[in-house]
Amino acid sequence: DSLEKLAMVGSGNFGSALVRILGQNALRHDIFDNEVKLYVYEEMIDGKPLTEIINETNENVKYLKGAKFTPNVKAVPDLAEAVKGATMVCFCLPHQFLKPLMPTIKESVAPGAKVLSAIKGIDFDDNGVVLISDLLRQGLNADCSVLMGANVANDMASDQFCETTIGYKDAKNGELFKLAFDAPALKVGTVPDTVGVELCGALKNIVAIGAGYSDGLGYGGNTKAALIRIGLKEMIKFCKMFYPTAGIDDDTFLESCGVADLITTCFGGRNRKCAEAYAKANKAKTLEEIEAEILQGQKLQGTLTAKEVNHILKMKNLERAPRFLSDRRAHPGAPLFATPTALCLSLVP
Amino acid sequence: DSLEKLAMVGSGNFGSALVRILGQNALRHDIFDNEVKLYVYEEMIDGKPLTEIINETNENVKYLKGAKFTPNVKAVPDLAEAVKGATMVCFCLPHQFLKPLMPTIKESVAPGAKVLSAIKGIDFDDNGVVLISDLLRQGLNADCSVLMGANVANDMASDQFCETTIGYKDAKNGELFKLAFDAPALKVGTVPDTVGVELCGALKNIVAIGAGYSDGLGYGGNTKAALIRIGLKEMIKFCKMFYPTAGIDDDTFLESCGVADLITTCFGGRNRKCAEAYAKANKAKTLEEIEAEILQGQKLQGTLTAKEVNHILKMKNLERAPRFLSDRRAHPGAPLFATPTALCLSLVP
Repeated sequence: DSLEKLAMVGSGNFGSALVRILGQNALRHDIFDNEVKLYVYEEMIDGKPLTEIINETNENVKYLKGAKFTPNVKAVPDLAEAVKGATMVCFCLPHQFLKPLMPTIKESVAPGAKVLSAIKGIDFDDNGVVLISDLLRQGLNADCSVLMGANVANDMASDQFCETTIGYKDAKNGELFKLAFDAPALKVGTVPDTVGVELCGALKNIVAIGAGYSDGLGYGGNTKAALIRIGLKEMIKFCKMFYPTAGIDDDTFLESCGVADLITTCFGGRNRKCAEAYAKANKAKTLEEIEAEILQGQKLQGTLTAKEVNHILKMKNLERAPRFLSDRRAHPGAPLFATPTALCLSLVP
Repeated sequence: DSLEKLAMVGSGNFGSALVRILGQNALRHDIFDNEVKLYVYEEMIDGKPLTEIINETNENVKYLKGAKFTPNVKAVPDLAEAVKGATMVCFCLPHQFLKPLMPTIKESVAPGAKVLSAIKGIDFDDNGVVLISDLLRQGLNADCSVLMGANVANDMASDQFCETTIGYKDAKNGELFKLAFDAPALKVGTVPDTVGVELCGALKNIVAIGAGYSDGLGYGGNTKAALIRIGLKEMIKFCKMFYPTAGIDDDTFLESCGVADLITTCFGGRNRKCAEAYAKANKAKTLEEIEAEILQGQKLQGTLTAKEVNHILKMKNLERAPRFLSDRRAHPGAPLFATPTALCLSLVP
């Protein structure tokens, strides 16, 4: 048959919020097969497999409690079975878990399957930034779109209106994924710029650390707004400097993945929160101690990304590139935290 | 002599915060005459004229309590004397008070004096939008720059780091005003686009009403970020639609006057606050009652501007222009308040 078969790899908080929409849209639009498969890394909840609980209750009780899937969302603990014959595969899991899964996925999906990454983060190798979408393209030999935006999962799950952005290389696939995600409470914008969209999702976390630090020091709205604005300009500059031929589009930064996600992350989110606590503790605690207290085992994306961005700038001998590092030399009076990246680098050992 | 003589017309909260900087910079830079004159609409405070208090204590105890001027800031109750011989005159007062002052100012300033408007707002006549800077240009026959940004006056007065934007027509005058305002805790950016800068200062208040309404309805960060983002796009669209030949620059909206001021206004500020209270009251009170309670006599800029913008759109037969009015037709599922202007219009009788 010629129906598009949807699958989601990853069943955490955000992946579950996204697959809930996919389930609704698979029923809404004729071009999709009704069944949407959700790969779940199996775990036992009170002695019962999580996949069984999801399939019986239509709810991911562990990672998205209180939100119901439509019954056509089927949780599957076996990866090969979860993506078998899928023509549109979405990814939403921590990127370090991705590589070992790819051979199985490549063997199991339908020929010509297209994929979408909703993974917020970037990887690094000896040559610099490695985009997760490029890992997927290479590992699966597939066209890959990306989805990023101001999308706090729990608010999405209660159908509070929000937007998201899909960046595509192949316009037809971009439109297909838009159809799969666009919903009454989730308005999808599309842009022909996967790199800009994907980098926004990673770099905003650096700025959020700066915003939290400003909050922790007791500075008001002027300072925080300046920091967010400079951070946005730094994000744009970084993208253009390191991807001069990727077709980075200024408009991308005015999409949900850009300014909107940046705002959400700088006013909510764990990066902001930990940095605020760190500033309030006034060096009585390390950032690592704060992370351990507040995040209970999870790691801050913002500090990891800042460290890696700093490493790249050093490698390229650009550590003093304007804006993305401290511009205190140009503006000696400006407080250090006026440049978010400089701030983050001062926090990272 | 060839020194630039600075004067400020208006001594409210923001005007006082700005003249405090002018006073410091007049001492810092040789090209300025040391004395900075501040026109104060005289009033009695505990039986003593406000100008006398300011000149004795170096503090505007009524409108910017707790912040000291340098002693070279001289409060003057007579308008002609305040601007006499001034070569650079800044304006920061409610725009409805401006017109009757202009003949006196025109007669008193130095020949070729340049002016700067820090007045956030727009006026309207039968043909549509009237920019305050154009009123000044016509009334004074002078070059006029504008200053707008994320500048909460009390935070500026305690030297919390912030940025602002000067839009200029004459580059040399733009640089002079930059020199007059740029300071360790106030970083000034300049753009050759007075119209975009000035309209940002007015239109952001419409979006802030939408943001407050979203807050009052209990929606979270996703919805608010979407609303702010769409509002920013609407601001850009409005500027370009109504000033197609004014040289509106996309970059203007990434300056402090654009995205930064919008963020500050949507998270703080009276427009946000009143709209939040209105939404929480759930139609038990009119917006006018809320205004009266919260603002004690002052009027909301956002609702006034929304009403006027709506009037213009109607006049130009553009009431259904995409985005700036409700796009519910295109996105029937989207809640009305997803478009800030539509929201405001629904609030305004």
